[in-house]
Amino acid sequence: MTLTTPDLQAQIERGLRDLADLVALPSVSAQGRHLPETAAAVTALLEAEGFRVQAYPGQVAPVLVAEAGEGPFTLLIYNHYDVQPEDPTELWDTPPFTLTERDGRLYGRGASDDKGELISRLAGLRALKAARGGQLPLKVKWLIEGEEEVGSPSLEAFVAEHAAELKADGVWWEFGSVTPEGRPVLYAGLKGIVCLELRCRVAASDLHSSNGAVVDNPLWRLASAVAGLRDADGTVLIPGFHDDVRLASEADRAAIARLPGQGEALRDTYEVTRLLGEAADYHTRLNLKPVVNVNGFHGGYEGEGSKTVLPAFGMVKLDFRLVPDQDPARVVQLLRAHLDAGGFADIEIVELESHQHPSRSDLSHPFVRTAVQVAQQVYGAEPILNPSSGGSGPMHPFMAHVGAPVIALGIGNIGGRVHAPNENILRRDFETGVRFAAAFLEALGG
Amino acid sequence: MTLTTPDLQAQIERGLRDLADLVALPSVSAQGRHLPETAAAVTALLEAEGFRVQAYPGQVAPVLVAEAGEGPFTLLIYNHYDVQPEDPTELWDTPPFTLTERDGRLYGRGASDDKGELISRLAGLRALKAARGGQLPLKVKWLIEGEEEVGSPSLEAFVAEHAAELKADGVWWEFGSVTPEGRPVLYAGLKGIVCLELRCRVAASDLHSSNGAVVDNPLWRLASAVAGLRDADGTVLIPGFHDDVRLASEADRAAIARLPGQGEALRDTYEVTRLLGEAADYHTRLNLKPVVNVNGFHGGYEGEGSKTVLPAFGMVKLDFRLVPDQDPARVVQLLRAHLDAGGFADIEIVELESHQHPSRSDLSHPFVRTAVQVAQQVYGAEPILNPSSGGSGPMHPFMAHVGAPVIALGIGNIGGRVHAPNENILRRDFETGVRFAAAFLEALGG
Repeated sequence: MTLTTPDLQAQIERGLRDLADLVALPSVSAQGRHLPETAAAVTALLEAEGFRVQAYPGQVAPVLVAEAGEGPFTLLIYNHYDVQPEDPTELWDTPPFTLTERDGRLYGRGASDDKGELISRLAGLRALKAARGGQLPLKVKWLIEGEEEVGSPSLEAFVAEHAAELKADGVWWEFGSVTPEGRPVLYAGLKGIVCLELRCRVAASDLHSSNGAVVDNPLWRLASAVAGLRDADGTVLIPGFHDDVRLASEADRAAIARLPGQGEALRDTYEVTRLLGEAADYHTRLNLKPVVNVNGFHGGYEGEGSKTVLPAFGMVKLDFRLVPDQDPARVVQLLRAHLDAGGFADIEIVELESHQHPSRSDLSHPFVRTAVQVAQQVYGAEPILNPSSGGSGPMHPFMAHVGAPVIALGIGNIGGRVHAPNENILRRDFETGVRFAAAFLEALGG
Repeated sequence: MTLTTPDLQAQIERGLRDLADLVALPSVSAQGRHLPETAAAVTALLEAEGFRVQAYPGQVAPVLVAEAGEGPFTLLIYNHYDVQPEDPTELWDTPPFTLTERDGRLYGRGASDDKGELISRLAGLRALKAARGGQLPLKVKWLIEGEEEVGSPSLEAFVAEHAAELKADGVWWEFGSVTPEGRPVLYAGLKGIVCLELRCRVAASDLHSSNGAVVDNPLWRLASAVAGLRDADGTVLIPGFHDDVRLASEADRAAIARLPGQGEALRDTYEVTRLLGEAADYHTRLNLKPVVNVNGFHGGYEGEGSKTVLPAFGMVKLDFRLVPDQDPARVVQLLRAHLDAGGFADIEIVELESHQHPSRSDLSHPFVRTAVQVAQQVYGAEPILNPSSGGSGPMHPFMAHVGAPVIALGIGNIGGRVHAPNENILRRDFETGVRFAAAFLEALGG
């Protein structure tokens, strides 16, 4: 790439102005605020770079699909233009919708998640075009939704329906992060997720607890059902649950072995007193092991002191974090069978929202290897390549319908306060992100 | 007894006037209202019948000890002059502190619990005295506290300290009830109780649930600990828990076998869908089996939908209902050992309030048999004799320190709304209660 440092710096500054403009639009999807307006602003930015942009109706906000460039490689980029609500507003040190630079950081709602990611990539693309006489050496498709912060309710069906239009050789995911030392963190997969509620009722209304000798207790029943879901080590005990778990590949295991740390940061930040498993297994567990979480357990008396009540009702909230090739619907079936077999047919299972399948790309795929190599060059530090995040997201539809590997790399940071007051990015990470985008697109273009 | 029907009716009417006067005093111990004033009113009523009354300071309200009469038998009567709060006041059909007769029922706070009990006994005593030329043929001691509705915080120590002063041959407990068909219900014992909170913390603050693969879950830990406390049938599984359970006597088993019903009323009233055990064992379980209840289970997210949180903390409220000769302090020790042995040494046990020992009188004791015989005569129906209630109360100190059997018989009814708006007694039950009191004292006097 023949782009000079002054030219690149100009693109970075222009990108920061664009980012400030986007941050100024409070596109809060949970509250339906400024979504078409922000979709239009993003459309204008893309059309200015020669993208043909198509807007489709989503459930909450338009879904944008853009396309530009020509070449042997087709890259699909996925981002979103909606943001989390800004409250509690009083905890922001500067106005949430005014991008503000302070001590090397840029603060604002969406500065990181996901407007900063979107604009850093756009600025890199501009830089590459500038160095290439206005031409892109690859086809870039860009899917930008406005419903990510409310769970991407339209996305899976949209990707399935528009599979041909979105066809690509590789997918660049919407997030990623950089360590304080400047090492880029890449993810090649996400866990799947199933969110459920268990409910148990034994009577129409609460009883005096002296009746506990003759009336069953819904909280004991739920406790007993929950206790049987995993062992003390955190391993899920539901028969059949592990049948579909894909064995970690050689490349996955090698990548896991290279991951730094063994949970010290988590332990120290949250003062965790009960880490599960051996320190040496930390990353294997976090990235490759399916788990069940109890998110909430509620029933009966909660106040000070005692109340001798036998509650009529109780409920438990659970999430299962799945790994390839577990299937969310199958997990619900297995749980139902497990509860029935354990004598808990009376416990109702309520599915709380759309499930997400797990996804994991092949780490030896050339697209993944290119991302790692370019990251190594641009960041000047060894990339941290995770086969999967411990978190979840709608990555699976891309792999299933677009038929391409997915890699996540971006400009987030561990102190970035995503979803919280004072969301921020490091200016350093934005700049390197622009450089990475330009170099990555160039490398993929060949 | 030579008391004529017109004389008895006059005593009943006088008793109802006294009851109206006492109900008019809102002696709510939980709010410290009108307690010395009510103690003084009760003292005046007793002194008018020749009682020597001593008032001792309690933690919340004075404890009254009164004594009158002379004879070979000493009866200790236990009552209380405090009441539950009246709110929600708007749910009362008539003012809570105005005794109001309607359709054969007398409504008012304390009409049943416990001012109605107290006055019905006093009116019976007056009737007996009137028939005996002003003499009582036995020694009557009367312990009347003003803290029962806040858990009798002074009572156990008081009874122990004043054991000699309270020495008696039999104790008449403060409550009892009559079935709709007019059968008197007697209790010869109460279960003991231990109220505890279990607490589990794994971190200083909540984490994202993706960390559930590497950080233990406090709600699973509590669920697992709670699950191991009992089996599906409700039998407590803590090693050693049953060691001190006294075998039911021949008389206990015979009494249990004669108890009417098998839980139909409970099932129908509360629409209970999960009764424990066999119908034939209903009364054995309710009256003679120790149990553990989960009164509350709380931690993590409780709102609509899902929140993928790994909670830092959770807590469970428990009560154990004990039978003779289980010891509350020993139960806490056994629970601690059980949790430790199960890998739950990190779960904290918090004792919520003073424990109560279980108590059960010998059903073949002459005092108990006299109560049953007199009840049979006065009520003209077969008494229902329970070896123990499923509920708990401070009966044990009386048996331990006064050294006498205890029997509960009184004027409550199943629709009496004790502790709730529209508390009431049946006029029929008050009248029969007065007649029972007179006949019982006479029979004990020999």
